[in-house]
Amino acid sequence: MVVYPNHNWMVVLTTLKGSILIRIAPRILMITLLAVVIVFFEKSYPDLFINVSATPLTLLGLSLSIFMSFRNSSCYERWWEGRKMWGLIVIETRAIGRETVSIEGHPLREEIMMLICGFAHAMNAHLRRQDEWEAAKPWIANKDFEYVDNLSDTILNAIAKRFAALHAEGAITELRYLELEKRLWSMSEAHANCERIKNTPLPFPYTLLLHRTTFIFCLLLPFAMAQPLGWLAPFITMVVSYTFFGLDAIGNELEDPFGNEVNDLPTNAMVRVIERDAYRALGHTELPPAMKPIDHVLS
Amino acid sequence: MVVYPNHNWMVVLTTLKGSILIRIAPRILMITLLAVVIVFFEKSYPDLFINVSATPLTLLGLSLSIFMSFRNSSCYERWWEGRKMWGLIVIETRAIGRETVSIEGHPLREEIMMLICGFAHAMNAHLRRQDEWEAAKPWIANKDFEYVDNLSDTILNAIAKRFAALHAEGAITELRYLELEKRLWSMSEAHANCERIKNTPLPFPYTLLLHRTTFIFCLLLPFAMAQPLGWLAPFITMVVSYTFFGLDAIGNELEDPFGNEVNDLPTNAMVRVIERDAYRALGHTELPPAMKPIDHVLS
Amino acid sequence: MVVYPNHNWMVVLTTLKGSILIRIAPRILMITLLAVVIVFFEKSYPDLFINVSATPLTLLGLSLSIFMSFRNSSCYERWWEGRKMWGLIVIETRAIGRETVSIEGHPLREEIMMLICGFAHAMNAHLRRQDEWEAAKPWIANKDFEYVDNLSDTILNAIAKRFAALHAEGAITELRYLELEKRLWSMSEAHANCERIKNTPLPFPYTLLLHRTTFIFCLLLPFAMAQPLGWLAPFITMVVSYTFFGLDAIGNELEDPFGNEVNDLPTNAMVRVIERDAYRALGHTELPPAMKPIDHVLS
Amino acid sequence: MVVYPNHNWMVVLTTLKGSILIRIAPRILMITLLAVVIVFFEKSYPDLFINVSATPLTLLGLSLSIFMSFRNSSCYERWWEGRKMWGLIVIETRAIGRETVSIEGHPLREEIMMLICGFAHAMNAHLRRQDEWEAAKPWIANKDFEYVDNLSDTILNAIAKRFAALHAEGAITELRYLELEKRLWSMSEAHANCERIKNTPLPFPYTLLLHRTTFIFCLLLPFAMAQPLGWLAPFITMVVSYTFFGLDAIGNELEDPFGNEVNDLPTNAMVRVIERDAYRALGHTELPPAMKPIDHVLS
Amino acid sequence: MVVYPNHNWMVVLTTLKGSILIRIAPRILMITLLAVVIVFFEKSYPDLFINVSATPLTLLGLSLSIFMSFRNSSCYERWWEGRKMWGLIVIETRAIGRETVSIEGHPLREEIMMLICGFAHAMNAHLRRQDEWEAAKPWIANKDFEYVDNLSDTILNAIAKRFAALHAEGAITELRYLELEKRLWSMSEAHANCERIKNTPLPFPYTLLLHRTTFIFCLLLPFAMAQPLGWLAPFITMVVSYTFFGLDAIGNELEDPFGNEVNDLPTNAMVRVIERDAYRALGHTELPPAMKPIDHVLS
Repeated sequence: MVVYPNHNWMVVLTTLKGSILIRIAPRILMITLLAVVIVFFEKSYPDLFINVSATPLTLLGLSLSIFMSFRNSSCYERWWEGRKMWGLIVIETRAIGRETVSIEGHPLREEIMMLICGFAHAMNAHLRRQDEWEAAKPWIANKDFEYVDNLSDTILNAIAKRFAALHAEGAITELRYLELEKRLWSMSEAHANCERIKNTPLPFPYTLLLHRTTFIFCLLLPFAMAQPLGWLAPFITMVVSYTFFGLDAIGNELEDPFGNEVNDLPTNAMVRVIERDAYRALGHTELPPAMKPIDHVLS
Repeated sequence: MVVYPNHNWMVVLTTLKGSILIRIAPRILMITLLAVVIVFFEKSYPDLFINVSATPLTLLGLSLSIFMSFRNSSCYERWWEGRKMWGLIVIETRAIGRETVSIEGHPLREEIMMLICGFAHAMNAHLRRQDEWEAAKPWIANKDFEYVDNLSDTILNAIAKRFAALHAEGAITELRYLELEKRLWSMSEAHANCERIKNTPLPFPYTLLLHRTTFIFCLLLPFAMAQPLGWLAPFITMVVSYTFFGLDAIGNELEDPFGNEVNDLPTNAMVRVIERDAYRALGHTELPPAMKPIDHVLS
Repeated sequence: MVVYPNHNWMVVLTTLKGSILIRIAPRILMITLLAVVIVFFEKSYPDLFINVSATPLTLLGLSLSIFMSFRNSSCYERWWEGRKMWGLIVIETRAIGRETVSIEGHPLREEIMMLICGFAHAMNAHLRRQDEWEAAKPWIANKDFEYVDNLSDTILNAIAKRFAALHAEGAITELRYLELEKRLWSMSEAHANCERIKNTPLPFPYTLLLHRTTFIFCLLLPFAMAQPLGWLAPFITMVVSYTFFGLDAIGNELEDPFGNEVNDLPTNAMVRVIERDAYRALGHTELPPAMKPIDHVLS
Repeated sequence: MVVYPNHNWMVVLTTLKGSILIRIAPRILMITLLAVVIVFFEKSYPDLFINVSATPLTLLGLSLSIFMSFRNSSCYERWWEGRKMWGLIVIETRAIGRETVSIEGHPLREEIMMLICGFAHAMNAHLRRQDEWEAAKPWIANKDFEYVDNLSDTILNAIAKRFAALHAEGAITELRYLELEKRLWSMSEAHANCERIKNTPLPFPYTLLLHRTTFIFCLLLPFAMAQPLGWLAPFITMVVSYTFFGLDAIGNELEDPFGNEVNDLPTNAMVRVIERDAYRALGHTELPPAMKPIDHVLS
Repeated sequence: MVVYPNHNWMVVLTTLKGSILIRIAPRILMITLLAVVIVFFEKSYPDLFINVSATPLTLLGLSLSIFMSFRNSSCYERWWEGRKMWGLIVIETRAIGRETVSIEGHPLREEIMMLICGFAHAMNAHLRRQDEWEAAKPWIANKDFEYVDNLSDTILNAIAKRFAALHAEGAITELRYLELEKRLWSMSEAHANCERIKNTPLPFPYTLLLHRTTFIFCLLLPFAMAQPLGWLAPFITMVVSYTFFGLDAIGNELEDPFGNEVNDLPTNAMVRVIERDAYRALGHTELPPAMKPIDHVLS
């Protein structure tokens, strides 16, 4: 995630960081060059040039805007829901720390808080398509459980067993056991919802249709702009295709919010927040440092 | 559901998989041919040709875009809600496994997990209009219950009876019994919500009105394009009608997300996830394999 | 609710069922005739004809589309919420059946399930402005309660008294009594929400303003279309006014989803679903038949 | 709230009730007169008249529509949420009646139901900026509690004390006490949410910006319409400014849904519904009459 | 937050308070001056002037409106969610007061209410990037807890310990303890959600893209307006750029609703509401005064 301390409008005009400009530069360049060629052709052989009326393009462009706005708002909602789910894990981590305050010092409590860190690391690695076992290992080593598949859920089961053990030995009442299980249910929900966002992209035909129509629209632009605008046409074409390609590309980036790109959610930083909350709940006073943006990017 | 490992923009421009192109090709072709005929006529008998001003078409096209955007976003929400409901069943399956961890090994627990698989299979078959009894049989055979109607709900009742039996024999407390019943409530909610989406399509007049207006709009397009664009008119007409017919067709596909078409939800794969979760909860280490996309389609 | 087995696009183009065409036909006809007269006048006395520029009309038409889209989406949400509330009653009926499985055979349980059917009938009749007492009588006769006002809520109270009696005689525990009361709370919520939708229409000025602007817009259309389009003007006017009057009328129909019109919610069919669920919960094997669409309409 | 038995489209075209027409009439008249003057000037001194191209106005008008649609939908959501919150109080009133059915006849139960009526009256008066103490007095007199500030919340506390007393004397169990407290929580939530809607208007700059742009847009309209439309310009200007001023004014009315204007929520009628529910719960058979719309307005 | 007693439309036209006019004045001025220069150039050297057709600008402007509307509605939702979260803390403060009514007078109860005030102050200071320790000190002094990090959460933990102590000494039952813990959970949720809104701005590329396109659009405006509008062009340009820069700036202000600017949420006033509720719950009759808007601004 790109973080800027303030939105000074001059800085915003010129920064490249977090912009999708680099990704779409080839496409924009191509369209702009095409516009240059076409204007050159129109100036040289005005008789051979077939002018394309701007009306169908306006129609196409506005329809495209309307549908792209729908796609962008859907992608943004996925991104925002992903963030909410990580926030839910933070809330539940704090709640488990708070609700076990009466058994402060119990070794199982410490184990549970470490397993929660392991859960967060495993889930993060899984969503980022990294090795979940490797990521969670420091937190779950020697915790004695069998790993078959779906490490995050397996860790939640391991936590559940510890809660059951606490109840069995009388450290917590039945009611409090059920309350703690509700916290696990929430974590499991956050986990399953993030999996849903990761594994169920927007219906593919939307992506296809909008991507294609955007491309054709930008290809046709110079034909319609060449005659009325002359040598301004390449510039206008560039601006318009920047806007449309840009929004198309932003939608793509936000559709899966759990990657490693600059505009993805800062899930590494969130895992660190969870670690810090777990340690604080255990009474530690030296916490791992909160993550800071590196070159304005929080990973 | 169509799955592409990455959205390379060149691939996206050219793939046919998951595109609704094939379904709407006849309509597009018809409109394009009409455009060719009309341009030919306009070139041959310019005096007889009545030019249609583009203004009313622009108005119609933009109004259409606005309303189609509303319909598409409603259809997408149905599709996404369907996915959420299946996700809820996954969450609850895991929760039942986790919350019965204290009676690990109890024969009723195993029966319950198998019945959950049966529930998922029955619901999936029902939503896909297949034989629900046939689909669920391997999981519910000899489970001794009467099937009258609505197999999924009948299975939930069978599970409820087993929870009651566990409580009656003292294996679980009253509180835990109620907690487990809440899980069944959630599954019943997911089931009823999927039935709602399946059985209550978008109000029919919307479908009618938009379908008809789209058709008339595309029919009129070549008349308005023939004079200003000449031989470019068929191409532009093709692109515009592709966009409008395409969005109309995508809406139709997403309206009922539980079919067998390529863009429908991968509910077979989700049922497999539930199976795997059920087996893992029972301590099995050999799980049925997760489903993989076949030719980029997850069914 | 209009039900079509599949959305064959040729059928959709030609069917009249469920279309709002019949309702708005007079208005469309009037506008079309006006257009014919105006074109005739323009052809006969071109010098006297004052051409109306299309620009203000385009502006008015697009603004209208944007606001009508807002109204339509609000009306659709009301319709959809109405459906969800009926779905909630189905879910709770099943849950009450499931959660009382441990007292199977108890005469009060049977009475409760019948009262639920009575509740559904009374609510349906009330929302459809029919005689609620008449509708619920077969289910609540001899159930000994005083009817003052608001029959559905009175029945919920009667059910609550039976739950209290079950608890008083020790058939169900306090916890389970509270769980069952939660089911009644949900039913009461569904009931109150449907009353809200029924009794609180969209703010009247929206309806007024959009209705009037639509009418004026359609009246002005032929004036703007007569000169540029000639004899095509009546046709185009017809198409555009069909779209706008049509969306206006659909909004009106969906605003109150509980009527007896073809596009209203199939609440009779839903009440039958509840009846079937109630009987199935009681172990009956002969259920009242599920309702089938008559001439593609489910009532 | 304006209530019309049916939406006959001819009635809707002509009624003044509930229309915002009266409020915006001066503005519309002003703009229309301006248009008359401008057309007169244009006809008299065509050489001096500077024609304003319609293109920037179309752009401004459509942008305005898009943003006004956003504002209107936000205001409508506030209005609808306000209605939901009052509905929630109705639901909870009924639930408290239902859940205390086992202590029917207990004097504290009667007191509680009367306090709920007082709560509703106090909240209604507070939201309508009337004297809350005066409004609630008939219901809370001699109920012995200190009024410092925030009468509605003080009454909820008084109810809570009675619940605690019922629990202390053994009339209700701890579990049921907590269940009843949940009902109070909901009422407190409804109360706080209505306060939120009342006290936190839409961000002021939106109101400012849209109000101003609407005004300038309508002022410029006649300049752009005078030449192309001639004497039709004042009429078209009137229609367009009616639509835009109208939507601006509706947004303003709905922003605060708790006033005494015709389009505000019928909270007096809702308070009466709560009274009736309270009396019915107490077994009264003579209820205060439900409120009827007076001259199509329910207050 | 800017508060106006009523929305008199003449006042609204002229006030500067709360307007973003001052912030965007330099940009508008720059564009207007540019327009003056360009019109002057066009009038002086009409042959050298390259007229920019308005069509691409209309397309760009409308696309921009559509996307900006999406951004604005997202920012508004963040602002509104922030307000809801503060409202939730008010609801929970009142609920804790109400639910501890049975231990009125207990010294721990007083401590808890003071800690809640401290929590609100700490959270407010944190969200406004002020010194949280300084802000909360008067309420949490001598409350004996270690401050490592995240003061608000630390205070919630301190409250949880007091609840546990109340339970341990038998003042409250286990059930009531859990109920109170739910209130803390809600407060923790409100806290985490506000942190989410504060720390996770809208995806940066949206801000970038819209900001840049708005700027280029406004820069191009005078070129397109100079020829058709003449000396009216600077005025129209000013109005249009006021609308677009204005909406861009409002979006920026609402994106982070927890600052100290005039349009930010009045969280100081909300903290005071919480203080008053806490004191009232403790039976105080002299409450700190509710905050009043100063010069129409509530901070």
